[in-house]
Amino acid sequence: MSALKQPDSKNVSKIGEELHRFAADLYPICRSITGDGIRQTLTMIQERIPLCIHKVPTGISVFDWQVPKEWNIRDAYIKGPSGERIVDFQKCNLHVMSYSTPIHATLPLNEISPHLFTIPEHPELIPYRTSYYKEDWGFCLSHNQMLTLGDGDYEVCIDSTLENGHLTYGECYLAGRSSEEVLISCHACHPSLANDNLSGLAVATFLARQLSRSDLRYSYRFLFLPGTIGAITWLAQNREDVRRIRHGLVLTCVGDAGGFHYKKSRQGNAEIDRAVACVLRDSAEPSEILEFSPYGYDERQYCSPGFNLPVGCLMRSVWGTFPEYHTSADNLDFIQPESLAGSLHACLAIVDVLENNGRYINQNPYCEPQLGKRNLYRSTGGNSISTEINAKLWTLNLSDGEHSLLDIAERSGIAFSAIRDSAQVLSEAGLLSPLP
Amino acid sequence: MSALKQPDSKNVSKIGEELHRFAADLYPICRSITGDGIRQTLTMIQERIPLCIHKVPTGISVFDWQVPKEWNIRDAYIKGPSGERIVDFQKCNLHVMSYSTPIHATLPLNEISPHLFTIPEHPELIPYRTSYYKEDWGFCLSHNQMLTLGDGDYEVCIDSTLENGHLTYGECYLAGRSSEEVLISCHACHPSLANDNLSGLAVATFLARQLSRSDLRYSYRFLFLPGTIGAITWLAQNREDVRRIRHGLVLTCVGDAGGFHYKKSRQGNAEIDRAVACVLRDSAEPSEILEFSPYGYDERQYCSPGFNLPVGCLMRSVWGTFPEYHTSADNLDFIQPESLAGSLHACLAIVDVLENNGRYINQNPYCEPQLGKRNLYRSTGGNSISTEINAKLWTLNLSDGEHSLLDIAERSGIAFSAIRDSAQVLSEAGLLSPLP
Amino acid sequence: MSALKQPDSKNVSKIGEELHRFAADLYPICRSITGDGIRQTLTMIQERIPLCIHKVPTGISVFDWQVPKEWNIRDAYIKGPSGERIVDFQKCNLHVMSYSTPIHATLPLNEISPHLFTIPEHPELIPYRTSYYKEDWGFCLSHNQMLTLGDGDYEVCIDSTLENGHLTYGECYLAGRSSEEVLISCHACHPSLANDNLSGLAVATFLARQLSRSDLRYSYRFLFLPGTIGAITWLAQNREDVRRIRHGLVLTCVGDAGGFHYKKSRQGNAEIDRAVACVLRDSAEPSEILEFSPYGYDERQYCSPGFNLPVGCLMRSVWGTFPEYHTSADNLDFIQPESLAGSLHACLAIVDVLENNGRYINQNPYCEPQLGKRNLYRSTGGNSISTEINAKLWTLNLSDGEHSLLDIAERSGIAFSAIRDSAQVLSEAGLLSPLP
Repeated sequence: MSALKQPDSKNVSKIGEELHRFAADLYPICRSITGDGIRQTLTMIQERIPLCIHKVPTGISVFDWQVPKEWNIRDAYIKGPSGERIVDFQKCNLHVMSYSTPIHATLPLNEISPHLFTIPEHPELIPYRTSYYKEDWGFCLSHNQMLTLGDGDYEVCIDSTLENGHLTYGECYLAGRSSEEVLISCHACHPSLANDNLSGLAVATFLARQLSRSDLRYSYRFLFLPGTIGAITWLAQNREDVRRIRHGLVLTCVGDAGGFHYKKSRQGNAEIDRAVACVLRDSAEPSEILEFSPYGYDERQYCSPGFNLPVGCLMRSVWGTFPEYHTSADNLDFIQPESLAGSLHACLAIVDVLENNGRYINQNPYCEPQLGKRNLYRSTGGNSISTEINAKLWTLNLSDGEHSLLDIAERSGIAFSAIRDSAQVLSEAGLLSPLP
Repeated sequence: MSALKQPDSKNVSKIGEELHRFAADLYPICRSITGDGIRQTLTMIQERIPLCIHKVPTGISVFDWQVPKEWNIRDAYIKGPSGERIVDFQKCNLHVMSYSTPIHATLPLNEISPHLFTIPEHPELIPYRTSYYKEDWGFCLSHNQMLTLGDGDYEVCIDSTLENGHLTYGECYLAGRSSEEVLISCHACHPSLANDNLSGLAVATFLARQLSRSDLRYSYRFLFLPGTIGAITWLAQNREDVRRIRHGLVLTCVGDAGGFHYKKSRQGNAEIDRAVACVLRDSAEPSEILEFSPYGYDERQYCSPGFNLPVGCLMRSVWGTFPEYHTSADNLDFIQPESLAGSLHACLAIVDVLENNGRYINQNPYCEPQLGKRNLYRSTGGNSISTEINAKLWTLNLSDGEHSLLDIAERSGIAFSAIRDSAQVLSEAGLLSPLP
Repeated sequence: MSALKQPDSKNVSKIGEELHRFAADLYPICRSITGDGIRQTLTMIQERIPLCIHKVPTGISVFDWQVPKEWNIRDAYIKGPSGERIVDFQKCNLHVMSYSTPIHATLPLNEISPHLFTIPEHPELIPYRTSYYKEDWGFCLSHNQMLTLGDGDYEVCIDSTLENGHLTYGECYLAGRSSEEVLISCHACHPSLANDNLSGLAVATFLARQLSRSDLRYSYRFLFLPGTIGAITWLAQNREDVRRIRHGLVLTCVGDAGGFHYKKSRQGNAEIDRAVACVLRDSAEPSEILEFSPYGYDERQYCSPGFNLPVGCLMRSVWGTFPEYHTSADNLDFIQPESLAGSLHACLAIVDVLENNGRYINQNPYCEPQLGKRNLYRSTGGNSISTEINAKLWTLNLSDGEHSLLDIAERSGIAFSAIRDSAQVLSEAGLLSPLP
């Protein structure tokens, strides 16, 4: 048993900067659920961790779904009556509705309008829109800009292709001592949106890199997928193997300045749910635990009733609840180096609970052992005891084979790390023995 | 599966007026636990629904009790020293203590006083009193009036009879597809008291009428009984058959302007308890759930330990807690057409839960089914989903054979009716299959 | 079944005075975990109740511990440069750290200082310190006094012995009809400290005296022990017999003016935990229930995982949380006669629950029995019922063989004593039968 190595505090700001830089490198790419953007993204992740990039052809059935055509885009614009580009994909890839079919035509405003999307409540922001499963084309722009459009003819051009090709996803497997697995999943299909979900990609990549250097009890499987269809495809291709998954986390929106939110798995009281709750309870950052619901990110698929995997979702601000969500305001300024570093830190602490949780047997279960003669106590009687001694007393008292270290941390209110340390010290003193 | 037909909103005020009119028709009758008053009441109910009127002779043993003598009254008064009727049963039947033995005598005030009942805290109200099991006579009057009585001789007359006869109760049985039963019980033994319990009689009668026109899963048994002794008599005569009762409600005080109160069954977590709680949670009216206690109306008998039936009690204001209770102020002004209609509506919604609750099996349990290709989803990705889609996702996610629709409504926080509708739509699409 | 005899209210203040007088008699003695002080204390308890005094020789192994050497002290002082006693054991036995090794030397202040203990936050109080398991010597004094000590040579003298001898404890066993036991344990090792724990010794002694005059269902075992090592020694010597313990209480700090605190047993929902919670709920005094923790008094040993006995700890103010704790301010003024009497009263009420708790079977389980014909009800119908009738209805309703009287008291919110009385009345009327 050993505590997972956490970066020391001097390195935290350095790591935050590195995480933010990686997100910034990924930011300009126009990703979608298929195509060159996600492939390029996966390649950049592959430069940092051992990533296997899988290709699944268009048309393959995956449960109730089919792998869609591959979408690629080179250029798109609307030119005004005076001939200049007034909406330009080259300036912001959110301007084009994802999966837009190709078009090149000159049309009057009233024929274009049904294809224009804005956010009247936030008139300065460009929305993010998709139409994966209904063939259509569209442009997204700020409501203020739309209001300036006068009557007249506009040249609209979307230089895209929607053709047979592949769905691509990345998988990083880190073998531990056991074949039981921890799943870390994040969606990699959003274009220039920083919190949703470059933050998740960056934190997951750095977490994988750190774990790849550790001696691990569990095996870890990181998935970088297109949302929904990617998770469904992976589950369809690994239907039996998912039984090895003991714990799992979906990571999304982990870069903004908000406190943590953890949405519990469908099981509701799985070890991952309790591990995250315990870590967040002991965190200096504010946090809130949310009940499971079937709407959300890919925990929807992992927690479908046929799988019912113990997979929760870790966020800072909850997707859909902050005004920047799915708009051009979810940019690199919206994510903070220290938030990214704090999210990585929380993930490492969660992994630490999973790695070190276990049951022990008190070898002196009748009355307390005499800690003093082993130099595990203080020698002069006073009024209060340190958390360190309190952690030892709790660990001894509840190490009856029924209670795990996580149980003890929960019941005692003492941080898991302190309980873990006490179990180590007491084991070295021969007072505890691990239950196999 | 089909939603129970609810009156549309245009008809609600019409139904409220009808309910109130029926209560008004019943109001003048002097009911007691036996005698002509309750018989006349049952006959008037019988004009509206198929009611079987049972007669049980005086002296029959019913568990630890005996059916009492039959009480009837023709007239009663107190004449003052000047010879005029100063307390007159013809003006208000509350003036006579129910089950008063006959008397005709001229007595000085000090001999009458022990037989006079008033409410000093509400000096303008006439109380309602009974003496079923101890032979006695008495008059009830306002405290203000009693204070005006001067010394002198008073002629007191109670022209009543207490003789061998019958206890009478009404039973309306509506056969459904199953022989399992839902019990609706209300006491019909109170004289001119509107909320307690003409409100219950009216709502139960209209509920029976509405259900008699519906295709029903359960069979429904409506009981219109004298309180306590009537329920005991019915239970004694149907000791084995009560095993068919799956759910039950006692209805009382459902006409006043207060919010709903539901007192849980002794079991505390029976399906009826959960169904009512779910309906009241989703109601626009205020409501409160109360724990079971062994004091109250006839749920006392249904929830006695030998039966322990899942029978709760639905009220608006709780009997005994409002100043009008068991006084002349519980009159036709105290009950409101809209309250009566709202209570009927709540009863129908409760029945709707019982009728339509069930377990389903998701036919595509691995990952979400693709709702979009079945036109059960929207096509353009946005930030939020409608309650309708959310209900579908919850129903699919929890339809694993373990969770009923009521479980899903409880866990999701979504109204049962929306969950029921989603189950119907999903079943029609082949995505759900009912568990037999 | 009979209610345990409680002192009537006229006697409460008399008993409070007696309890306080006994504490005052014990106060001057210099107790420690071994030696003449605790022996003398036990002899004074033995004058009031049948107490067996056990001697266990130094060096005997008790689980992970050893019985320590016996410590005795005759005198101790510090003489100032002018030759007068400035710190004097004869004036206050707290001045010497308990288990101080003998010393007689003249030393400069800087060599004495490491052996002086004060409480800077409460500069007027003398602290209580011990060093049982590390041989050392020390003096305790007020911080104010220490500040007056000038440079110069001081004569320090501790005329103590630390030699092979015995650990002594007292045991009072009261045989009841069953060999199942209730354990009452209190530590008797503190010198002149009144609340901690002369209050516990006095209340336990008086409780034993009262119970010795009662017809008891359970057998009762009272232990007067040195803290920690005494409980460990007793458990080691009675390892098998402790299985007879069904309920237990540690008594400490039960004399101050604060409200009650009860720390639950490790089991958390043992009958003793529920009995105490029910008694405190119905007490006129404020109270609070605390979760178990492995730090505290001898419940630490009784609740070690190998034993896991249902033993909680009853206190008024919680040890360690009040400024007088383990200081010279925990004196005879700090404990109140009425608080001591109230604690004895609470203990008797707890014993009453344990003695009289049981399950009954309603002999008329189908519908309510007719209480009126047995004169167990009122005859004229009104709006409310007395607690007495309510207790009868609850007891009848829940006496199905599943619910104990304590269950009924908990669920009904009615005092256990009222439920116990109703069970007695209903049994006498043939309506209940006790479950063997």
